[in-house]
Amino acid sequence: MLVNGIATDLLSAFDRGLHYGDGLFETLAVIDGIPCLWERHMRRLCLGCDRLGIHRPDTRLLRHEAERETGEMPRGVLKIILTRGSGGRGYRPPNPQQACRVLHAFSWPDYPADWAHRGVQLRVCDSRLGLNPTLAGIKHLGRLEQVLARSEWDEPAIAEGLMLDTEGRVVEGTMTNLFLRKGDRLYTPELGACGTAGVVRELVMDLAEDAGLTLSVTHLFLRDVFKADAAFLTNSVIGFWPVKRLEDRDLEVPAVPPAFSESLLAKVYSE
Amino acid sequence: MLVNGIATDLLSAFDRGLHYGDGLFETLAVIDGIPCLWERHMRRLCLGCDRLGIHRPDTRLLRHEAERETGEMPRGVLKIILTRGSGGRGYRPPNPQQACRVLHAFSWPDYPADWAHRGVQLRVCDSRLGLNPTLAGIKHLGRLEQVLARSEWDEPAIAEGLMLDTEGRVVEGTMTNLFLRKGDRLYTPELGACGTAGVVRELVMDLAEDAGLTLSVTHLFLRDVFKADAAFLTNSVIGFWPVKRLEDRDLEVPAVPPAFSESLLAKVYSE
Repeated sequence: MLVNGIATDLLSAFDRGLHYGDGLFETLAVIDGIPCLWERHMRRLCLGCDRLGIHRPDTRLLRHEAERETGEMPRGVLKIILTRGSGGRGYRPPNPQQACRVLHAFSWPDYPADWAHRGVQLRVCDSRLGLNPTLAGIKHLGRLEQVLARSEWDEPAIAEGLMLDTEGRVVEGTMTNLFLRKGDRLYTPELGACGTAGVVRELVMDLAEDAGLTLSVTHLFLRDVFKADAAFLTNSVIGFWPVKRLEDRDLEVPAVPPAFSESLLAKVYSE
Repeated sequence: MLVNGIATDLLSAFDRGLHYGDGLFETLAVIDGIPCLWERHMRRLCLGCDRLGIHRPDTRLLRHEAERETGEMPRGVLKIILTRGSGGRGYRPPNPQQACRVLHAFSWPDYPADWAHRGVQLRVCDSRLGLNPTLAGIKHLGRLEQVLARSEWDEPAIAEGLMLDTEGRVVEGTMTNLFLRKGDRLYTPELGACGTAGVVRELVMDLAEDAGLTLSVTHLFLRDVFKADAAFLTNSVIGFWPVKRLEDRDLEVPAVPPAFSESLLAKVYSE
């Protein structure tokens, strides 16, 4: 682990990331020592900084530290946390700010190998996402809603839980974005009031049209999920998981033409 | 600063408080080395633990550490952070959990002396509070909404900003609870969907009736604030601030009969 470039796993207990969730994070796949989708992750991180009024990081320094931290790792995960640092008076941010960065590489999660091909089983979480356009989309450090949702089940066979917002709209999984397919139309929830705009979600949106899929970003409800032909989940580490079952409803696997998921995965792990 | 009973200002960078805002905090006034309203603060902390599924702390140990940290401090502030500790797999909490506690005593904030008597000036913040009943009321570590609201102004004459929720209801100040008075009726916002249920707010609610004030806990809008005879703010450190001005509207000072605010303050700093 690197904290502000120093190899340590200790952080100032004054850090505003701890006190207020005052910061952002990114989680990246690492293949052969290279952090994947780097430009997209940095773009989202900088956008989050702008939204929160945190100085944008020196992304070349972050890249240098990312490579120091991941070394020759053949396959792994890199988490980057960027906080507003210490200081300020209560909630009021310090001026000037001295952001704090934490980089941590860890081993690839041991998800069952067949989830990526045969699909996963989903549940619907009771925990809801609150509505707050100011924080929607960005990957800020306040993740209690996801923690509570992920606490709801222990069954190893259930890969992920869908989260609704307080209005009953389907938003995302606890750690993934959601897409539905109906014929050659693709749907993904609009994230203006809550949710995280994932980088692989963005990639799917960029690739859909060329694959002959018409994309709609819209409000979705559970009835839409149950009426879909197929569904899949995305994030930077898993890439793409087809959904084979949601609660007691079976869905089509493969969720999309294999050529599409293959070209998506090629980009996820190499761009 | 004490981290798990050890005098240090460093914390594990794996802590879930940093990664997910997965924890709670309390801010207490300290008078002559004694943390004020201790029982009420511990009750709220334990309630928050129950809501988040964090093990309740050993409050006798916390009290022992609080006294070690505050020493003979004649007047100061003690912040207690309790997190779910480290571990788990992503958002999923670890099992078993090993909570982490951080206690930090610091000097009394240098608010102008006349704010407590002559009243303070308020603004209305643009930043809104999201709606999430699961997290409403408790003092969890995800405070980005307050950080953004408190970033909105620099004017030293403005003591506090009122925050509305995304539906336009008035909820609280960035660091205080709000009460309005109209005749002998007292009103404070209902906190079922957002906001923090302050311990001094609770104390006011307990004392109001004996002081001849009829209390309503209800939805309030800006028009209610502008139509009130008087308003005041509460928290554990300031105790009680009358509001003399909200944006361009003057309000009555004293906000409540002096006997009421005096008996309130006597309890805030001695119970």
